[in-house]
Amino acid sequence: MNAEEIKGFFADRDQLNMDDYLELEYYLECVGDIRTALAHFCSEQSTAQWSRVGFDEDFRTLYGAKVLSWQVLEELDALSYPVEHAAVGKIHACRVTIAHPHGNFGPKLPNLITAVCGEGTFFTPGIPLVKLLDISFPDNYLAKFEGPKFGIDGIRDMLGAYNRPIFFGVVKPNIGLQPEHFAEIAYQSWLGGLDIAKDDEMLADVPWSTTKKRTKLLGKARLRAEKVTGDKKIYLANITDEVDKMIEQHDIAVANGANALLLNAIPVGLSAVRMLRRHTKVPLIGHFPFIAAFTRLQKFGVHSRVVTKLQRLAGLDAIIMPGFGNRMMTPEEEVRENIEECLNEMGTVKRSLPVPGGSDSALTLESVYRKVGSVDFGFVPGRGIFGHPMGPKAGASSIRQAWDAIENGQSLDCYADNHPELMAMLGK
Amino acid sequence: MNAEEIKGFFADRDQLNMDDYLELEYYLECVGDIRTALAHFCSEQSTAQWSRVGFDEDFRTLYGAKVLSWQVLEELDALSYPVEHAAVGKIHACRVTIAHPHGNFGPKLPNLITAVCGEGTFFTPGIPLVKLLDISFPDNYLAKFEGPKFGIDGIRDMLGAYNRPIFFGVVKPNIGLQPEHFAEIAYQSWLGGLDIAKDDEMLADVPWSTTKKRTKLLGKARLRAEKVTGDKKIYLANITDEVDKMIEQHDIAVANGANALLLNAIPVGLSAVRMLRRHTKVPLIGHFPFIAAFTRLQKFGVHSRVVTKLQRLAGLDAIIMPGFGNRMMTPEEEVRENIEECLNEMGTVKRSLPVPGGSDSALTLESVYRKVGSVDFGFVPGRGIFGHPMGPKAGASSIRQAWDAIENGQSLDCYADNHPELMAMLGK
Repeated sequence: MNAEEIKGFFADRDQLNMDDYLELEYYLECVGDIRTALAHFCSEQSTAQWSRVGFDEDFRTLYGAKVLSWQVLEELDALSYPVEHAAVGKIHACRVTIAHPHGNFGPKLPNLITAVCGEGTFFTPGIPLVKLLDISFPDNYLAKFEGPKFGIDGIRDMLGAYNRPIFFGVVKPNIGLQPEHFAEIAYQSWLGGLDIAKDDEMLADVPWSTTKKRTKLLGKARLRAEKVTGDKKIYLANITDEVDKMIEQHDIAVANGANALLLNAIPVGLSAVRMLRRHTKVPLIGHFPFIAAFTRLQKFGVHSRVVTKLQRLAGLDAIIMPGFGNRMMTPEEEVRENIEECLNEMGTVKRSLPVPGGSDSALTLESVYRKVGSVDFGFVPGRGIFGHPMGPKAGASSIRQAWDAIENGQSLDCYADNHPELMAMLGK
Repeated sequence: MNAEEIKGFFADRDQLNMDDYLELEYYLECVGDIRTALAHFCSEQSTAQWSRVGFDEDFRTLYGAKVLSWQVLEELDALSYPVEHAAVGKIHACRVTIAHPHGNFGPKLPNLITAVCGEGTFFTPGIPLVKLLDISFPDNYLAKFEGPKFGIDGIRDMLGAYNRPIFFGVVKPNIGLQPEHFAEIAYQSWLGGLDIAKDDEMLADVPWSTTKKRTKLLGKARLRAEKVTGDKKIYLANITDEVDKMIEQHDIAVANGANALLLNAIPVGLSAVRMLRRHTKVPLIGHFPFIAAFTRLQKFGVHSRVVTKLQRLAGLDAIIMPGFGNRMMTPEEEVRENIEECLNEMGTVKRSLPVPGGSDSALTLESVYRKVGSVDFGFVPGRGIFGHPMGPKAGASSIRQAWDAIENGQSLDCYADNHPELMAMLGK
């Protein structure tokens, strides 16, 4: 591109009607001339050839992505991660804000993804490393999305649980357990104080534990637990499946008494989540398989906050995400940002319940609570409940006792003195 | 885990009925004791807690993933890419083969993805960096997938095009063109010799170019082109959309004369591709947005060959993929592997047409052909045809002339002497 052509991909914010644009934030490692690379970056993700041969026309005005601002973060001696066939030249780490016209694709998740992190984004000459850091949506665009049907407030109302975290538990052994045994230990965990007993994200409809049989047994067990405890309970059934089976899976599970449904959002596709949102009678809760494959590295891929925003937009009422602690290998700041993205103002889109997870137990609750900084989160142990030495009921009790200790301002050690279930966790 | 527990996640191939297992190849960077990390890796991706408390049972026999073999590639001074909260200790780059029981999830793409590159894979203590390198499927598992409906042979039969590459062209300007103009230049390109005129992967159903209107015009233009040239032609319409709109989009497009359909496989989800495969009347062709976000780096994410295999399994008759040349930033060996994965024996699953793409034109055809090593590929220029200085018909002719030159064993320079369309490309 020549200097004049390059200019067509730069604009001032006040020249544009920003209602027509998404704002995209990217981290880029540019090789060679930065303005040329940025112009190509915009061109490749929008109108790559902006006129027919022999016609005096310019599609960039209406359809071109445009650089609103950019800054050089630093000059680098080498790319942060080596890339085969990368261009050779001076390397600059840059941060750039792009205005991308959403009329190019409309309020559709697969097409949005194609535009903002598709071929254009990842195959721009001179930009071997890219990370999509953030997307901001104008309200008119957000208004086209249904968003969560229940949201955090709807889940709280279902459970009658306010002013405290929502207590989930992943039934374990996660794989291999017969539905009868699965129902029995889920029942125990509800008696111990869990709000939500859930299927593992890997357990779905399989011959040795069909959705039909498992949800029937769990639905009944839930009603029994509600009767015994006087509290409302949720059985969260994983209906992750081929997308043309999901509606049927929803109907079977809900008819049998599963009153929330788990979806592995990226494996089924965000658009399939949105499809189910249009149909569902119960809250939809997302789990995070595959997301780390493109979000973990600091300087390449897509920032997890973008994935959280898109999951909320697709209609997930709660979003299970990598939480605090070394096992999850996620910077604390990033976990906090993802929690905030569930709760931030987002047009008319309801708030999702953030559920930061990873190897939790009664011992980690206080630390998670302090880091979250509010009660608006879900807490989701697995082995911390179902591996408890006194059994799943005691495991669930240990979590509720840990919360009571926090509410009473007591240390776990002191509170455990007359709470053997908590004591057993401390002694573990 | 203690030594005895670790042992439960290792097995010899001849102890197992390999029909019950997928074989997974991973590159791992392990921190600390390697066998411990590998046992955790298997545990996290299968039965993370393999018995109920107080029960003498072991779910690992039937449901556990198991290490079949592993080797240390090298000891590293540091992780290849930094990871926050990564464990500290000796680092070894390893290659490991895992047997993963497919009965844990069944022949379902979202559940397969969850198992082999989900939370377990990316959140194993002591394994901050992982790349899923390959999956091998037993024939009984493959037999559950429909695979491509047409495949490479079906596409050739539709076109009556044998013993040569299939010539695609991406109509450009890709974004912004009115359907009437779009139809006109597609028509020109068919006259010039293109087999398949296609929508860009970013152009789908938008108010300024609806699927309804565009496919109607293009369907008619295709018939005219077939009449004029006497050759069969394909209009490849992009119906990437929300998944609950795709069947309707298929029906509109096909009724109007689109005789192949484009899907952005990862943005819609591989399972949505499979859904459409069960419904489609025409070949389905996949494009590659988003794939680079998790395949580009050598030592993290998922190898693109896995994505190619899964796209073929989902039923794509042709797979557009990053091809040769610097712009695509993909090692030549990797492009070749992806081409091979389209053509290799895969149970009863038909062969897909590989379409390695990226900034191609008459000038790159010979090089692509030599690198592919056979005529079984699609060639997919965009601006190389629609940016041709003499127009799209000449652009398409220049591609066919380049092929004629190859077939005649002549250099482009010589052949261009009495072929002005090719000459114009050489002079460009």
